[in-house]
Amino acid sequence: MRENFDIHEFNITIIGLGLLGGSYAKSLKKLNPKNIWAVDIDEKALKDGEELGVIDRGYTNPKEPLLNSDLVIICLYPNLVYKFIDENKEYFKPHTIITDSTGIKNGLVDEINRILPDNVDFVFGHPMAGREKKGLEYSSAEVFEGANYILTPNSRNKETSLLIVELIARGMGFRSVVRVNPQKHDEIISFTSQLPHAIAVALINSDNLNVNTGKFIGDSYKELTRIANINGELWSELFLGNKDNLVSKIEGFEEKLEIIKQAIINGDEETLIGEFRESSRRRTQL
Amino acid sequence: MRENFDIHEFNITIIGLGLLGGSYAKSLKKLNPKNIWAVDIDEKALKDGEELGVIDRGYTNPKEPLLNSDLVIICLYPNLVYKFIDENKEYFKPHTIITDSTGIKNGLVDEINRILPDNVDFVFGHPMAGREKKGLEYSSAEVFEGANYILTPNSRNKETSLLIVELIARGMGFRSVVRVNPQKHDEIISFTSQLPHAIAVALINSDNLNVNTGKFIGDSYKELTRIANINGELWSELFLGNKDNLVSKIEGFEEKLEIIKQAIINGDEETLIGEFRESSRRRTQL
Repeated sequence: MRENFDIHEFNITIIGLGLLGGSYAKSLKKLNPKNIWAVDIDEKALKDGEELGVIDRGYTNPKEPLLNSDLVIICLYPNLVYKFIDENKEYFKPHTIITDSTGIKNGLVDEINRILPDNVDFVFGHPMAGREKKGLEYSSAEVFEGANYILTPNSRNKETSLLIVELIARGMGFRSVVRVNPQKHDEIISFTSQLPHAIAVALINSDNLNVNTGKFIGDSYKELTRIANINGELWSELFLGNKDNLVSKIEGFEEKLEIIKQAIINGDEETLIGEFRESSRRRTQL
Repeated sequence: MRENFDIHEFNITIIGLGLLGGSYAKSLKKLNPKNIWAVDIDEKALKDGEELGVIDRGYTNPKEPLLNSDLVIICLYPNLVYKFIDENKEYFKPHTIITDSTGIKNGLVDEINRILPDNVDFVFGHPMAGREKKGLEYSSAEVFEGANYILTPNSRNKETSLLIVELIARGMGFRSVVRVNPQKHDEIISFTSQLPHAIAVALINSDNLNVNTGKFIGDSYKELTRIANINGELWSELFLGNKDNLVSKIEGFEEKLEIIKQAIINGDEETLIGEFRESSRRRTQL
């Protein structure tokens, strides 16, 4: 039972010290917790993290830090989260709060709740922030500033745990923390995150101009393709793990693009202007 | 015949003092030409321009400034450019250079060359810069800093005129000035500019989540939809004036998106990772 939450008394362990884990460490540092530890199989990342003062200590074996951690933040690829919990479930300190940063939730929540010890609380979370680069060297506290954070509570969660994760997220600089169930989360994210990545990849891969395209672009093309520089292993996991939602959102997008295409073919200015007016209204209200 | 080009001796008239015309005026100011005049039907814009010191003088009737201008920069909607030249062709000073900022060139170049007096030179140009807002109040010299400028020369152009327009563009802060024929320009622009706008509009208009979407987005969705806030009158002209190219580029994009969609449906990780690798390579090289 947690009362009188004080982050200065918290030992925090980050599992996976890559771009996201490193950004967590740097951002949490500002909140001055008792200790920030990290677990990774990459000894160089741990050593760099220690030398840069990003973490207090790094471990390749999770046992020791887990036994003493009040908060565990999992920053692993989606397919590794279950495996990590399964292999280490006996080491969690009683009343530990676990949270994650996995981009898809449905399925995972049930799978993990099935094996999770009763005396720990897993608050599933999704910081809506990332970068196209990989690795600790590209991590920064700034990626979270002003960003959105999503919690996907389930019936097992204690309200105090949810509030503590929210408080820490706000302390790290997230502007908004919202709660939504895991199913809805995955539908939303297929639209707001995965679909844009699919579009950016398809756009740049459809370039058949045979010119030095970079000399003929404005801000729009630059912005629409930034995320086409993509971590393929991570994003293919995210796409395939959220198949039905993503296919449905791609098809919804295709239908709207088809309306525009047909209006162009038919010289139908009225439909075009109608679509533009609607998109302007939506973007202004976003 | 122009020799010893010196911009400090140039009278420059901008036709249309909106977002783009105002940005030209502010940017050209740094080069200290003899005079910057503007023509507009909107007397308030002219008065504001004068009071802000953006222009030296504004005119609703183009005759007087045109009779004394060495450079005329047309910042009108595409459909108004021909009409403006036709109605004012007798007023251009001999050896005047005219340039424009129209986003589509094919057709326009031939139409205008058919009515243009022999003793003036129209250098068609396309500054790859803009903003989603309209009007002088949103204009700024910064929109051109580091941007791309495209010239679409035709057989009527003198090399000196092309070089003068390029020099002025570089002086205004454009990083790159390239030349391409009007047909190729329109093909390129349908891909690098019009297709991204069609995609952004279709993306935001396909939002059927029924949530406060803004709480669930990261940078990617923000960037992919910025241009969905769009000047509908201008962009429907641009889309419909470049119909064949744009439809072809939309279809090329749809084919690539279909490859991704099928790979998701089939659980085909190899194809996904292949597409991601190719898009990352292209984006890095852009």
